[in-house]
Amino acid sequence: MKIQIEEKILSENDKLALENRKLLAQHKVYSFNIISSPGSGKTSILETFLTELPKHHRVFVLIGDVQTENDAMRIIKAGYKARQIITGGACHLTAKVIGRHLNELDLHELDMLVIENVGNLVCPAAYDLGEDDKVVVLSVTEGEDKPLKYPSIFSKASLMLLHKIDLLPYLKFDKQKAIECAKALNPHLHIIETSCFSGQGFKEFIAWISSRLQEKRARVKNKGD
Amino acid sequence: MKIQIEEKILSENDKLALENRKLLAQHKVYSFNIISSPGSGKTSILETFLTELPKHHRVFVLIGDVQTENDAMRIIKAGYKARQIITGGACHLTAKVIGRHLNELDLHELDMLVIENVGNLVCPAAYDLGEDDKVVVLSVTEGEDKPLKYPSIFSKASLMLLHKIDLLPYLKFDKQKAIECAKALNPHLHIIETSCFSGQGFKEFIAWISSRLQEKRARVKNKGD
Repeated sequence: MKIQIEEKILSENDKLALENRKLLAQHKVYSFNIISSPGSGKTSILETFLTELPKHHRVFVLIGDVQTENDAMRIIKAGYKARQIITGGACHLTAKVIGRHLNELDLHELDMLVIENVGNLVCPAAYDLGEDDKVVVLSVTEGEDKPLKYPSIFSKASLMLLHKIDLLPYLKFDKQKAIECAKALNPHLHIIETSCFSGQGFKEFIAWISSRLQEKRARVKNKGD
Repeated sequence: MKIQIEEKILSENDKLALENRKLLAQHKVYSFNIISSPGSGKTSILETFLTELPKHHRVFVLIGDVQTENDAMRIIKAGYKARQIITGGACHLTAKVIGRHLNELDLHELDMLVIENVGNLVCPAAYDLGEDDKVVVLSVTEGEDKPLKYPSIFSKASLMLLHKIDLLPYLKFDKQKAIECAKALNPHLHIIETSCFSGQGFKEFIAWISSRLQEKRARVKNKGD
């Protein structure tokens, strides 16, 4: 019974995610969904990412949290367009709630939609939002076996940021093992080591996102021809 | 509809949690449920806690994870009794699954049951397992506003471990703000600063748990008189 209900909710979510995906493609908007544990550094990553991103990119950020508007306020204070989605009790965003916001945004004035999911490695992996890429953040202050413990998100992500890499000297974290665990689940996973303190990895992160955005535009254009 | 289903599942869980609580009281077993984000250090905390706990305490550890038996193996290797509960897709433990294990354990041979929940700050807070205390772990590598973002667990916990405190010099973490956020939600919350590297706080943690165990025994005894 419980499984049937979950399956029904998930297949309903998939339909709405498909609608979001079509709408974003229509407007040539590239989107990524950033997922991690609470406190892995998603919002700080977005602050640094947005600051270093070439200014011609027009970006909007949707941020999910169980409570508080703190994260959207951080992004807005940094000078970027953002909106907070307070989920109340829910531990993940859904395609339905993202769809509602897409209908309110001027998509023809955007190049990129960034979605920061609720801090959680389990449920956000099960809910497709219509994004182009899932970006998973693993902070080196967490265990190196996280990919094995939370295989779904590490299998579905296109990019993994191995974050807070500046703290490595103070930790017993086996970086090679973390990378091997992630690659064993997902051989195509691209991995970038990042730090908001030193700025390490952000040039590569921005180059990766920019190339995905260009690929999407080319894909959408060819389809439209 | 969704809310109704959730309410039904939760009230069913509450009934089973009450049964677990009665069963543990009958056998004078004290229990705590340790909850945090993935990678905050729950298993390392339990390793240090068990090593430093006076040996006359008879302890069993139940460990929830979405996948892998890694954490139970760590506790067993350290010489303690433990069992892994693999939840598959579920992002939290339930009273039902804990009840199933309670029925299989020799409760009359135990003083303490430790439950390590799935790494998640959202759903584990909603599911009472029949434990005496919830212990929430906040690592200083996470943000100081976590209590405000995840108010449910910080409101329901009796004890908060402010963990990885040895990393404080390398971080921009406002310790006072974190403590104020937590106390604003829950003025009775007891807070201990801990580190597995230096061993800081573990004497106090063990003293706190031991006094809760003694209090429970006294309570159960008085009721039985």
